[in-house]
This record gives sequence, structure tokens and C-alpha cells, in this order.
Amino acid sequence: MTSGLRFLVAAKRCEIAELEQLALTSALVNVTGRLVHGLQRERGLSNLFLGSQGQQFGEVRRQQIGESRQIEAELRACFDELDTDSALVGNGARLFSRMAYVLHGLDALEGLRLRVQALEWSPRQATEAYVRLITGLLAVVFEAADSASDPEISRLLVALFNFMQGKEFAGQERATGSALFAAGRAEAVEQQRLLHLIESQERCLEVFAEFSNAQALELWNATQASAMLAELERLRRVLCTAAHGAPLNDQLSKAWFDCCSRRIDRMKAVEDRLALDLLQACEEKVTAAHAELGRFHALNNSPATEPDVLSFFQTPSGANAGGYATAPTSYGPHLERSILELVQEQARRLQSMSEELDTVRASLNERKLIERAKGLLMAHRHLSEEDAHKTMRQMAMNQNRRLVEVAEAVLSMADMLPERLA
Amino acid sequence: MTSGLRFLVAAKRCEIAELEQLALTSALVNVTGRLVHGLQRERGLSNLFLGSQGQQFGEVRRQQIGESRQIEAELRACFDELDTDSALVGNGARLFSRMAYVLHGLDALEGLRLRVQALEWSPRQATEAYVRLITGLLAVVFEAADSASDPEISRLLVALFNFMQGKEFAGQERATGSALFAAGRAEAVEQQRLLHLIESQERCLEVFAEFSNAQALELWNATQASAMLAELERLRRVLCTAAHGAPLNDQLSKAWFDCCSRRIDRMKAVEDRLALDLLQACEEKVTAAHAELGRFHALNNSPATEPDVLSFFQTPSGANAGGYATAPTSYGPHLERSILELVQEQARRLQSMSEELDTVRASLNERKLIERAKGLLMAHRHLSEEDAHKTMRQMAMNQNRRLVEVAEAVLSMADMLPERLA
Repeated sequence: MTSGLRFLVAAKRCEIAELEQLALTSALVNVTGRLVHGLQRERGLSNLFLGSQGQQFGEVRRQQIGESRQIEAELRACFDELDTDSALVGNGARLFSRMAYVLHGLDALEGLRLRVQALEWSPRQATEAYVRLITGLLAVVFEAADSASDPEISRLLVALFNFMQGKEFAGQERATGSALFAAGRAEAVEQQRLLHLIESQERCLEVFAEFSNAQALELWNATQASAMLAELERLRRVLCTAAHGAPLNDQLSKAWFDCCSRRIDRMKAVEDRLALDLLQACEEKVTAAHAELGRFHALNNSPATEPDVLSFFQTPSGANAGGYATAPTSYGPHLERSILELVQEQARRLQSMSEELDTVRASLNERKLIERAKGLLMAHRHLSEEDAHKTMRQMAMNQNRRLVEVAEAVLSMADMLPERLA
Repeated sequence: MTSGLRFLVAAKRCEIAELEQLALTSALVNVTGRLVHGLQRERGLSNLFLGSQGQQFGEVRRQQIGESRQIEAELRACFDELDTDSALVGNGARLFSRMAYVLHGLDALEGLRLRVQALEWSPRQATEAYVRLITGLLAVVFEAADSASDPEISRLLVALFNFMQGKEFAGQERATGSALFAAGRAEAVEQQRLLHLIESQERCLEVFAEFSNAQALELWNATQASAMLAELERLRRVLCTAAHGAPLNDQLSKAWFDCCSRRIDRMKAVEDRLALDLLQACEEKVTAAHAELGRFHALNNSPATEPDVLSFFQTPSGANAGGYATAPTSYGPHLERSILELVQEQARRLQSMSEELDTVRASLNERKLIERAKGLLMAHRHLSEEDAHKTMRQMAMNQNRRLVEVAEAVLSMADMLPERLA
């Protein structure tokens, strides 16, 4: 094999390895999404259970716990199958590190369930514990999206991550609303929280719409047109417009939970569709890359010809700039030149993929900015992560600004922080 | 091994694999730099040889070719040693693709030398051929810099790439000046080119100064204070201020070449220093990461204790935000909790590394913008890469703007391109 061809093949092998890695990661994301869904239901039911002093929802909660346990076992099996002895391509360190965190959370999950069962924890405490675990699971999906080196896959992962994050906000909305109805009394702080959760989920869904494929988006839009949404908006109005301290009809607790759940279940269907398309896209790309690799290998068996040594300096490097698809399929008299053209095409394609990827990844930067600002608050004010997040969310509510705007403001006034926020 | 610990170890292994990859890549960058240096001298001497109609510089050129051949053999050996059968971590596809291109260039190098020897090519043609090959070699260094996942290593690679690129502009300045002196007549287009090369190299050296470590920067600053620089500036003035068509003293050809060469040789010393520091930094980091891995493994042999299952929900995730160094070194009663803390520290450290990396990489974006604008011009106007670059350089000269500003302008008026630039 000529040296040029050998490295052409090596580059293609790297692409294939990354795509296969992405296929594995996508399968993991799929199970992660299902576990998140199960834990979201479990969280909601635990809130209803705690809200009713353990008088109601015990049985349905127990059933849900059983389901969650099954999916958890699946996810653990997925993790176990991962070859942790060899390094992952891409940002494997961050992905593994998120998984390590999640596993600690899953180890602690039975303890949490016992505390809820024994009515030892308040709905608030239980919600926060579930939120922490789900946040950890979503961070795995985020890293997967951030590590994808193929722009089309990356778009689907970004769409999926944002949809899952939006669905989690919808889940938190369900829990917060359930707790409010169950308590039977409107509370301004929680009402503010609800409004913020509604706004946050809408923003995530916008990003989803920007990056989703047509099929998932269509499915989502069809969901949006349903009568169920009118019922949700009516209950949202009841919850959010009641004066602080005014009574809420605790009989609506179940209606609220069911309505939110129906919506979230429909969201799950959209999520499943996206996850399926993602897996399929990975498979197609792996197949295509293997076919391409086969073509490269076939070149090696072409009859040897006098190498055209100067083609490197004489071929305009912009020839065939039109793209990959125009690659010649038969390699006759000028093998050397043909390989050079393939090399140039490969370089151009990788270049344009990397440019497209930069664009897709820019959408992940908002989240990174928020994380960075949070880290700054944690360091400067010795806050826990939760408290840093709460502080920023409170600033966003007070100033009626987006969380990312608050994050930018926090980062830009980093030097003044200790005084300004003390 | 507990699952959390297993993934903590896996994440560390990924880091180690990436660092080892970086050490390999850095060694490759080192040899690449030496070959670039040899080819730069060869290009200058070929110009002098062609300028003198083959009457002068034949012997010294032959010697230089011998040296270049030796380094080329070293680089090929380096490439051969690379394990192309297994995928590289990071952006292996782009790196391998650049190498494939370079190998084609090296295959064509003897053909180029023969054309120069036979006086078949003009100094201009020969220079462009050498520039193309050296550009290919520098692209390997660029990909290496762009793939580094450790911010400190990435800083050094960005400094090194920019220094090498600056040195290449200095080499092109030497070749352009040599050709002008040898021709014995000032020519406005070439004088403009000289000015542009001087400006381009200064910009690269600014980026180098921003990202270099203190030792290399000190070495560079010491070089700057020398008397040799005064001689260079005097000759630059002679070259650039002569009226178009005015005679140039062709006896200054050798003086110019020697003066530029002394400067470039000193630049090589700075480059070597940086390359050495880079290798050392890689080694130190690999050693440190291995030590850390050993600590993780030791944890596995700690006496088993009752797991503290709820620590996940009770540990403030912001605890020990101060950093990695504060990790506890003995793990007593609360092993589970200790591992959780390690996991959290690892996540924070990876997060902050990734943030720092974003900052360093931003400096590589200028080059990417220029490449992207070039690609656009190639596609829209069916230009070769060289012609697209020339067009942009010409626009920059005419408008007295930086190349990156022209690139931004080109990209922002993409839709109007066919008309505006036709």
C-alpha cells in the first residue's frame, strides 16, 4: 500500500471508530432517556404520596418503582458492556466521569425511596434528590452530544438533549404543581418557580425545533395541537394566578398530574422517535464509511502504473471542490493522481464537517456559560451547586432575564463578584 | 471494584490515552518542524541557484538537499511507526488526512528538485511548489494543536504552530527578497508581497508571545535585541522603498540571504526550545496521571465499609470546589463518600480544563475562518486554493485590512458573492 493510501485508510478508520462509538453512545442515550422518564414519573408519584401523608398513590408508586428498577438494571448492563479498559475516542474522560457520578446516584436511589416510603423527607427534599439524579443522567446525554464529531449526528443529539431537558422541566413543573395542589394553598415562591419552569421548557423546545429532523418535529407539532394542551393551560392558569395564600382545590391534584403525565408521555413518544432516528443515522453512516473503506482497499489492488510524481504540485488543490460525491469510481492510468484527489476530497470533507460542527456546537455553549457562571459563584461565595443555581435563577426571575443572560453578566463582572453579590 | 470507581478509573485512562497520543504527536511535530526548516533553506538556495542561472549556490544547495533527505527519512520513519491500524483519539481522521497529503508532497519532492536542477522552473514556480509542501506540513501541526485536549499542552502547541507559521512567512520573505535582489530590479507587486509577509509574520509572533511559556519567550526576546535585526531592517528598507523598475544591487542577494538565514536559524532555536518543553510537559502529565490512576487503584484495596448510600443526595456538590489538589489522601470510614468526592472533583477539573481549552482554541479560529472563506471562494468562483488565497490576500492589501477581516467579510456576504466578486 502506498503511504498516502495507508493514511487515507487510517483517517477513514478513525471516522468509523468515532461513528461506532457514537452508535454505542446513542444506544446508551436511549436507555438513559427511558430511565429519566421512569424517574420523572416516580418523582411525581412520590410527591403525591408524600402530599397525601402516604394515604394515596402508594400502590401506583410501588409499580412505578418496579418499572424504574428494571430500566436501571438495563442501564447498568449497558454501562457494564462498555469497554472501560480501552480509551474512548472523543471526550471519553468527560463521558466516563459523568457515568461515574450517575452510578453513585443510582446506588443511593434505594435509600431515597426508603426515606419517601417512611415519610421522612418533605416533598421538596424528595424532589430535589430526584432532580439531582436526573440532572446527572442528562449530563451524560449532554457530553454525548458535545463529543459527536459528525455534524448530522451532532444535530440529532443536540435536538434530543434539548428535548429531554425540556421534558425534565415539564416533569419538574408537574412535581411543583402537584405539591402546590396537594398542599391546598397557593404560594408565591412556588408559583414563580412554575412560571420559570414553563419558560425554560419552551426555550429548550425551541432549540429542539431548530435542530430536529422533520419527522420528529412533525410528531411534536401534532402533539401541540391537541385538546390536552388546553386543559394543561387551564390548570396552569389556576395554579399561577391564585393569590398568595389563597386555597387551591386539592382534588385537582390528580387531574393536574394526569394531564401533565399525558403530555409528558407524548413527549416521550417524540423522544423515542428522535432516539430511533439517531440510531439509524449512526448505522447508515457506519455502513457508508465501511463501503468507502472498501473502495480505498480496492485501489490497492489496482494495476501499478508509473507514479505521476509531480501531480502534487500541478493539480490545482481546488479541483473537484464540488464535493465528495463527485469522486471518480474507476481508477485507470493515473493511480497516484487519483489517490491524491481522494486525499484532497477527504481533507475538504473533514474540513467542512468540522465547520458545520462548530455551528451545531455553538448551541451547547449556552449551557456551558451557565455551568461556568455557576462554578464561579460556587468558588467566590462558597456555595453548593444547588445554591449557586438557585441564586442565578432568582436573579433571572427578579430581573426578568434569561438564565444565560444572567450567566453572561456574572462572568463579565467576575472581578467585582465578592462585593456585588455578598 | 465499585461501579463508580471503575468509571473514575476509565475516565483517567482516557485522559492518559489522550496525553500519550499528544506525546506521540508532539514528537511528530518536532520532526515536522525540522523538515520544514530544511525545506525552507532548500527553497531559499533553490531560488538563489535559479536566479544565478545555475552558476552559483549549486554545491550548498546539494548539501542542503542531502540534509533535507535525512530529515525526510526520519519523518517517514515516524509516520511508519504510527499505529494506523487503531484509531487515534481526538480528531485522528483530520490528522491522518493531513499526513496522507504530506506524503504525496514528499513523493513529488524529487521531481521538483530535478526541475530546479535542470533550470526548467522559474524561481516563482519553485517557490510556490515548496510553499505548498511546507503548508501541508504546517497543517499537520495545526491539526495537532487543534486536537489537544489538555489546555497547557494546547497552549504550547498553539504557540509552536504560530511560531512555525511566522517562521515560514520569514522564509517566504527570504525567498521573495532573494529573487528580487537576484533579478536586480525592484518590482511593485513583489514589494507589496514582502510587506504583507512581514506583517503576517509579526501577527503570528504576537500569538506566539501570548501563548508561549516564559522560557521560549525570553529566548525569543533576546534574539530580537540583536544587531542582526538592524541589518535585516536596513535590507528590508532597501528592498521595499526602491521605486518600481529601479535597479537593485544583485550583490546584496547573498547578504540578504545570510541575514535572513541567521534570523531564521535563531528562530529555529526558539522553536526547538518550545518543542522540547512541549515533549517534557507531555511526559510530566502522563506520569502525574499514572500516579493518580495508582491512587484510584489503591482505593479498591481499602477495607470495605458499610456504604453511605445517601451521601450522593446529602453531599453539597459544591464541596471542595477549591480544586483537585485538596483531594483527601487517606480513605477511612467513608469510602463511598470519598469516591463520590473524587468523582465530583474529576468532573469539575475536566469541566474547567474544557473551559480553558475553549479559550485557547479561539485563537485557532482565525485560521479556520480564513480557510472557510477560501473554500467559499473556491466553490463560488471555481478557483484553485492558491488563487482563492491570492484573491483574499489582494483584497487585504488593497483595503489595508487583515486577512481574517477579509475572510469575515467574504463569509458575511456569501449570498452576494458571485456578483460582488465576479
